[in-house]
Amino acid sequence: MTKDDQIPFEAALVARTGPIEALLRQLLGDRPLSGEIARPQRLMEAMRHGVLNGGKRLRPFLVMESAALFSADGEAALRVAAALECVHCYSLIHDDLPAMDDDDLRRGQPTVHKAFDEATAILAGDALLALAFDIIADEATMLPAERRAALVLALARAAGAGGMVGGQMLDLEAERIRPDEAGIIRLQAMKTGALIRFACEAGAILAGAAAADRERLAEFGSAIGLAFQLADDLLDLTADAHQMGKATGKDAAAGKATLVALHGANWARDQLQGLVDQAHALLHPYGEDAVLLKQAAKFVAARNS
Amino acid sequence: MTKDDQIPFEAALVARTGPIEALLRQLLGDRPLSGEIARPQRLMEAMRHGVLNGGKRLRPFLVMESAALFSADGEAALRVAAALECVHCYSLIHDDLPAMDDDDLRRGQPTVHKAFDEATAILAGDALLALAFDIIADEATMLPAERRAALVLALARAAGAGGMVGGQMLDLEAERIRPDEAGIIRLQAMKTGALIRFACEAGAILAGAAAADRERLAEFGSAIGLAFQLADDLLDLTADAHQMGKATGKDAAAGKATLVALHGANWARDQLQGLVDQAHALLHPYGEDAVLLKQAAKFVAARNS
Repeated sequence: MTKDDQIPFEAALVARTGPIEALLRQLLGDRPLSGEIARPQRLMEAMRHGVLNGGKRLRPFLVMESAALFSADGEAALRVAAALECVHCYSLIHDDLPAMDDDDLRRGQPTVHKAFDEATAILAGDALLALAFDIIADEATMLPAERRAALVLALARAAGAGGMVGGQMLDLEAERIRPDEAGIIRLQAMKTGALIRFACEAGAILAGAAAADRERLAEFGSAIGLAFQLADDLLDLTADAHQMGKATGKDAAAGKATLVALHGANWARDQLQGLVDQAHALLHPYGEDAVLLKQAAKFVAARNS
Repeated sequence: MTKDDQIPFEAALVARTGPIEALLRQLLGDRPLSGEIARPQRLMEAMRHGVLNGGKRLRPFLVMESAALFSADGEAALRVAAALECVHCYSLIHDDLPAMDDDDLRRGQPTVHKAFDEATAILAGDALLALAFDIIADEATMLPAERRAALVLALARAAGAGGMVGGQMLDLEAERIRPDEAGIIRLQAMKTGALIRFACEAGAILAGAAAADRERLAEFGSAIGLAFQLADDLLDLTADAHQMGKATGKDAAAGKATLVALHGANWARDQLQGLVDQAHALLHPYGEDAVLLKQAAKFVAARNS
C-alpha cells in the first residue's frame, strides 16, 4: 500500500466526524426527551466523557459508507451510526473498570471511573447501551418501522451474549482457559468483530437492500473486523503507550493468547494482506462506489494507533 | 383491605409465573440464535442465576394484565413481559455490585458477583439489557413492526439516563446531596417508577390502544410505582432480613432520605391508601375487566416481602 492511497480516505474519515460529533453531543445533552423525567447532570457528564473523547469514529464511518453504497437516507444512517458509537463507547467504559481490564487511561485521558467513580462508570455504560436502542427505535430515525426494528435486533444480537459481551467474557476466561487457535478466532470475531460486522451490515439494512447484499456487507465487516483485531494485537506488541494513548504490552505481559503471539508478527502481516484482499473481493460488484470502503479495509489493517 | 381480596390475586400472580419462567429459561438457553456466534456457558449461567431466582414477576404480571385489558395477543405480551424482567434483573445485578449497593444476598441467594465474580456480573447485566431489546424487536414477537419499535423506544427511555439508570444515579448522589421532598419523589419515580410505569403502558402499546388509554395505563403505573417504593421504604424500616431475603435497615443506617424517614410510618400508610384509591379511579372506565390490576395495586401497597 502506498501512502497516497490513504490520503483521500483519512480526509473522508475526518470529514465524517463533524456531523457525528455534533449529533452525539446533541443526543447526550442535559435536556430530557419526551418520556424522560430528568437527566442527572453528573451521569450525563460521565456519558459525554466516555463518548466525546476524540475517537476516530471508524464504526460510524462504516455505517455511513455502507449506507451510501445502497443510497440510504444519510440522516437516518447518521443516527444509526451514533447509536452504534454509543454501544462501542459503553463497552470501553465497562471494559476499563477495575474488575475488568483496570485501565486508567483511554486516548490519553482518565477513563470514566477515574474521572468520576466506579458506580458512575457502570451507570454511564448502562445508560449508553439503552440510549443506542432509543436512538434507532425513535421515529426521528426516518426509516420504516420494519427497518428500525431490524436494526435494533441486529445491534442487540451483535452487542449481547452471543456477540460483543460474549466475546468479552471469553476474553476474561482466556487468562485461565487458554483457547486454541479456533477459540481465539471465535473470541475475536465476537469481542471486536461483531460490532464492526454490524456497522457494515447496517448500511444494507438501512437501505432495505437485498438479502444477498446484506450478507455480502456483513462478510466484508467480518473480514475487516478480524483485520482490526490482528492489527491491534500487532500494535500491542510493537507500539508504545504514548502512541496508543493507553497502556500497551499488556497482552504479552498477561501471557494472553493472541494469533500474533501464536504465529509471530510476519505471519500476522501476511494474514492482514489476505484479509484486505478478501474484503476488496467482496466489494468488487460495487465498483467505484465502494472505493472508500475498500480504503477503510486497508486503513484498518495498517493503522498505527 | 380484607385477606379475601388478596387470595384470587395472589393465585393469579402465581399462575402467571409458570409461562414467564418457561419463556425466560428458553430465552436464556445455551444455544446461539441466528446472528450469534456462541453463548459462553459461564456468562449464560450468570445470567440465569440473576434472572431465574424465584422473583415474584410483578412487572411481567402487569404487562400481561394490561395487555389483556385491551385484548392484545397473549404470546406477544409474554415476550414483552420477559424482556422487561430481563431489564429489571440486569438492574438488580448491577445494583448489587460492590461499587454500588454492595449486597451479598438477593432472595436469600448469593448475588451474581458473589456466586461468580464482579466482571462476570457486569457482563451478565450488560447482556441482559441487550437481550431485552433483542426479544422485543424479534419478529417472533408477533406484533406489527411499528409496535415493536414503539415498545423498544418506551423501554429504552424507561431504562436509560432519564429513567431507571438516572434514578440509580440520583440515589447514589442522595448520600452526598440530601434531596428535598420533591427530589426524593423524582428519584423514586425514576429509579423504581419508570419500569413499573412501562409495564402498565406496555399493554396498551402492545394492543395498539388509543393514546388516551395508553396515558391512563401509564398514570396507573406511576401511581403503583410510587406505592411500591413507599411500601419498600416502610419494609426497610420494619421488616427483618430473613423476611426480605436481603439486608434491611440499610437506608436508615446510611441516613438515606426517604419519604418514610421524612414523614413517618403513619403518614406513609395514609399515602399508600391514597395511591391505591388513585390507581383504582384510573381503572374505573374498564370496570370488571380491570379487577386483577386493581388487586395488584393493593398488593403492591400491602406487600410484606
